[in-house]
Amino acid sequence: MPVNYATPAPESLYPVAGVRLGVAEAGIRKLDRRDLTLLALDPGCHVAGVFTQNRFCAAPVQLCRRHLELGSEIRALVINTGVANAGTGDSGVQAAWQTCSGVGKLLGIDERQVLPFSTGVILEPLPVERLVAGLPRCVDDLKADHWHAAAHAIMTTDTLAKAASRRVQINGKTVTITGISKGAGMIKPNMATMLGFMATDAGIATLLLQQLVREAADESFNCITVDGDTSTNDSFILIASGQSGAEFADAAAPGYAALREAVIAVAVELAQAIIRDGEGATKFMTIAVEGGKNRDECRKVGYAIGHSPLVKTAFFASDPNLGRILAAIGYAGISDLDVDAVRVWLSSAADEILVAEKGGRAAAYREEDGSRVMKQSEITVRVDLGRGAAKASIYTCDFSYDYVKINADYRS
Amino acid sequence: MPVNYATPAPESLYPVAGVRLGVAEAGIRKLDRRDLTLLALDPGCHVAGVFTQNRFCAAPVQLCRRHLELGSEIRALVINTGVANAGTGDSGVQAAWQTCSGVGKLLGIDERQVLPFSTGVILEPLPVERLVAGLPRCVDDLKADHWHAAAHAIMTTDTLAKAASRRVQINGKTVTITGISKGAGMIKPNMATMLGFMATDAGIATLLLQQLVREAADESFNCITVDGDTSTNDSFILIASGQSGAEFADAAAPGYAALREAVIAVAVELAQAIIRDGEGATKFMTIAVEGGKNRDECRKVGYAIGHSPLVKTAFFASDPNLGRILAAIGYAGISDLDVDAVRVWLSSAADEILVAEKGGRAAAYREEDGSRVMKQSEITVRVDLGRGAAKASIYTCDFSYDYVKINADYRS
Repeated sequence: MPVNYATPAPESLYPVAGVRLGVAEAGIRKLDRRDLTLLALDPGCHVAGVFTQNRFCAAPVQLCRRHLELGSEIRALVINTGVANAGTGDSGVQAAWQTCSGVGKLLGIDERQVLPFSTGVILEPLPVERLVAGLPRCVDDLKADHWHAAAHAIMTTDTLAKAASRRVQINGKTVTITGISKGAGMIKPNMATMLGFMATDAGIATLLLQQLVREAADESFNCITVDGDTSTNDSFILIASGQSGAEFADAAAPGYAALREAVIAVAVELAQAIIRDGEGATKFMTIAVEGGKNRDECRKVGYAIGHSPLVKTAFFASDPNLGRILAAIGYAGISDLDVDAVRVWLSSAADEILVAEKGGRAAAYREEDGSRVMKQSEITVRVDLGRGAAKASIYTCDFSYDYVKINADYRS
Repeated sequence: MPVNYATPAPESLYPVAGVRLGVAEAGIRKLDRRDLTLLALDPGCHVAGVFTQNRFCAAPVQLCRRHLELGSEIRALVINTGVANAGTGDSGVQAAWQTCSGVGKLLGIDERQVLPFSTGVILEPLPVERLVAGLPRCVDDLKADHWHAAAHAIMTTDTLAKAASRRVQINGKTVTITGISKGAGMIKPNMATMLGFMATDAGIATLLLQQLVREAADESFNCITVDGDTSTNDSFILIASGQSGAEFADAAAPGYAALREAVIAVAVELAQAIIRDGEGATKFMTIAVEGGKNRDECRKVGYAIGHSPLVKTAFFASDPNLGRILAAIGYAGISDLDVDAVRVWLSSAADEILVAEKGGRAAAYREEDGSRVMKQSEITVRVDLGRGAAKASIYTCDFSYDYVKINADYRS
């Protein structure tokens, strides 16, 4: 049961000029399921991506990195679910290459102009013949307004499709940004993986786009955690088609700040949707850390709280368990933290309660106030470290019986 | 239900000459419960300790550090359960000081010769009057063979008392090492804390003892994890009375290696008992990492596996979920790890199964073999990183419904 999230209606996902999407049933692991998605890009698109830091990175991730480094003009993305093609060695790389080659032949482009993505069970061979056989049906299905269908086709254990879209006016042009994502955190490494695909019709110079995709990931997909695990296949791609006529050569270009903000907002929406659909989640938690010396230490504190099974089970129980939060702040790794300067608030849409200061419980804090906040489904833990001006937010969910049930029962 | 652990019988806990223990009911938080323990040390004992790295460290920990740094001869340890005296500010330090002062008056020693320890709920004031009022009964109870009673009196949420003892012959002398511990990981920061107290009648020079307590912690209490959280009050103390006549001035002293090994063995037994009694634990897991460039990277990999809720839920389900283990190795933070060189075995007392090599599933591996191992209650995940000679072991338990139940229900 996702926490305060519903898939946007098809008509609210604006097409992005220059990008068409098609889906098909290829029978990769299960029958009667759309499991293959193709994005075809017009000439002139720029593409940049960020990928998993996991040393066991999947074969398609290896090919994506190689094709982007080559600097060839990317003209297509192909995504399959069912099998992740991870932990599959040389034959896995060969299968990913055959996938690209199959797309290339159909679209009349070089296989190095194709980026492949896979998500599903790991350590199993990719049935590449079935995949390639399904590609013509994807090509037949290509349409600019198929974002909604694509959001469904890239799902694995997701309980609902995740998408976001917005239009903004920049420099007198209407700029569209639309994206889809999948994943339930990295709850299930065998059927998991976090994928995000975004496109805009803004024109963004290649180096600037590479910077923007990293910044957007840093504010969104890199700020979410369900259980601290990261997958072998995580990928986030940003496409800029340029067909709106709004062009941005560098970060100082007029209107770029507004574009950047809108791109990040869509990325955050896509990333948060993953947490809202986290396995067993009943609450959406924002850990907002401010007053740090730098962003890195704010993130450390955010992750210490957001990863703590003790904090997460307390949130599941609607228990304002201050001790667990303070303990997590204390072991986050800031060796010179002055605990007397730390302040902590629990807040919901209606309330903000100062719960801790001066190394312990706030004098005016009453547990019934904390309990009232904790009963909400959207809760912010705000932490002021009292030692600087940096800040960072982490998004996570609570830890329920269902989390253990889902992950213990899976495969068994 | 602890995993393969039973409290040793009273007669198997050998007294340590120079150390007497007494317990009493002080009514600190609950009635009819022995909650106060005193260790009285003869003159001539050396004492060293290691303490929590949590920045929110409790008042007694602050006093312990101060008294040890002063270099005064420690003559007593006092331990209360019920209230942790953490997050209690200046008045908490004052309460810890009054505790030491109370012990000092009774034993005719300076309060700086006393080390105080508290475990229980945090953010609550220590009822120091009741504590001090209970001290005379502890003094009346002082006996060298009261280790078993002390093991019980320091328990909080532990389901059973934890103790270990052994006698070894070194340099023609009989040396005794006895210890007690408490904690259920850091499952419950409000009622948690890991405490370990060990004593030997060997004579160990102060600097050597400080080194030994760090080394012993590093091989034992620092190698266990239930949920990755660390408490505000964690402490581990080693006392050397010298009354056996076996004396060790430095690490090169004859017989010291044997003494060191025995001390570490007792510490490991005490630390593992905490994991075996971990909240909701049904399995005891050893993550044995070898072939690293250094011990630190082996520990990183061990903790990545041992902290992963995905791995821990899979173990609960007896599921040999290779993908989760490989993914954890991959994100452990060794940026130049060659995954093709990594090998992984699952083993029980009866079996050792090579499950992964060359970046994926081992060619000869059959899942039924992995499943057979996973059904045991003692399981080792052995990882060879294939890049050096360093190694390290981490001890942990699985993650069950009961873990969530216990931690979500607690306080609610």
